[in-house]
Amino acid sequence: MTTVGMVGGTGPLGRGLAARWAQAGVSVTIGSRDPARAEAAVGEVRDLVGEAAAAVTAAPNEQAAEAEVVLLTIPYEALDAVADRLGSTLAGRIVVSVINPLGFDERGPYPLALEEGSAAMACAKRLPDARVVAAFQSVSSRQLYRLEDTLGEDVPIFGDDDAAVEEVASLAERIEGMRAVPAGPLRLAGPIEGLTAVIISINRRHGSQVGLRFSHLDA
Amino acid sequence: MTTVGMVGGTGPLGRGLAARWAQAGVSVTIGSRDPARAEAAVGEVRDLVGEAAAAVTAAPNEQAAEAEVVLLTIPYEALDAVADRLGSTLAGRIVVSVINPLGFDERGPYPLALEEGSAAMACAKRLPDARVVAAFQSVSSRQLYRLEDTLGEDVPIFGDDDAAVEEVASLAERIEGMRAVPAGPLRLAGPIEGLTAVIISINRRHGSQVGLRFSHLDA
Repeated sequence: MTTVGMVGGTGPLGRGLAARWAQAGVSVTIGSRDPARAEAAVGEVRDLVGEAAAAVTAAPNEQAAEAEVVLLTIPYEALDAVADRLGSTLAGRIVVSVINPLGFDERGPYPLALEEGSAAMACAKRLPDARVVAAFQSVSSRQLYRLEDTLGEDVPIFGDDDAAVEEVASLAERIEGMRAVPAGPLRLAGPIEGLTAVIISINRRHGSQVGLRFSHLDA
Repeated sequence: MTTVGMVGGTGPLGRGLAARWAQAGVSVTIGSRDPARAEAAVGEVRDLVGEAAAAVTAAPNEQAAEAEVVLLTIPYEALDAVADRLGSTLAGRIVVSVINPLGFDERGPYPLALEEGSAAMACAKRLPDARVVAAFQSVSSRQLYRLEDTLGEDVPIFGDDDAAVEEVASLAERIEGMRAVPAGPLRLAGPIEGLTAVIISINRRHGSQVGLRFSHLDA
């Protein structure tokens, strides 16, 4: 059974994914630079899913980075430091960029213009020996927290390593109501990263917590 | 009743939208530089919707640009020429950027990196006196053509002129199964333009004709 580690997994998305995976019996390590924050995050997952949280452990980022599939649930600004510190640990592993490079100003959120075109491509550049995949950026953490509701979200999965994409797709589909959609090469991840700004903007306007869906996928 | 003009409306998306609007009784002018192509496009709409196509007329682009709402259903590369030729006609009008700035190479489609961040922002820069809105970029022309099927697509609508956004939203909702989603300022249109590359990539991989949906919008 695949183990999942989350570097910087203490935020809402990390906790929400950990809760859903724990329910499905997937082992997750929530990593943080600060052991107390990792412990607090695991406590919150326990509040959500009870005994199933036995599958979730707190650890330093260095240890979370030793899992078979490692999610980078970090702010874009932290990427350079994480790559410097964990680059050698991450070599050869499946590394999932969940990074949304967004800015915020008085008009709301907006996608940052990055030299590499996307955070996913920046990951691939800074972690040349990792098997980089991009996924989960548009998932609503609020919907993940609503364990009683059908999630009803599609997760486009991008990557240039087909086996890594497949592995992440099966992990995604362990979560009930989450449909994995292999979507092409890593260079196409940018629009989905930017879509998060659109989703936040829609939510502010409509008081909603929307998720991404593709209609007519099975046609 | 609002009239719709399409500058460069002879492509699949222009014809598909015209067919659906014609069914709903909305008057559409399909514009082209080439009168014969505009006539041919109207003929194709007639094949689809029969008598309802009486609401659709062929015209030179100059005349299509005189409608109350003008869709730019043009390739990105044509924007400069269109702005030069039609800029004064479009001043004060609602101009809808339906432009998807995409490149294609041996690995498939990819979003072009534009100086302005998006084709929508490039429109606003080149047409400073128009009320620029961005919409319909991700709509599947194949699904528009399947008149017997529920469309089931959401259309995020971006713009800095609220009245213009509302006008385009009500036009979108004239089409059965199309849900308009006012989504924020024009500067957020980029991810939806880029999403079209993702959608094409998904369709090639899955043999599908997907459309965009947001789950949990009414929450």
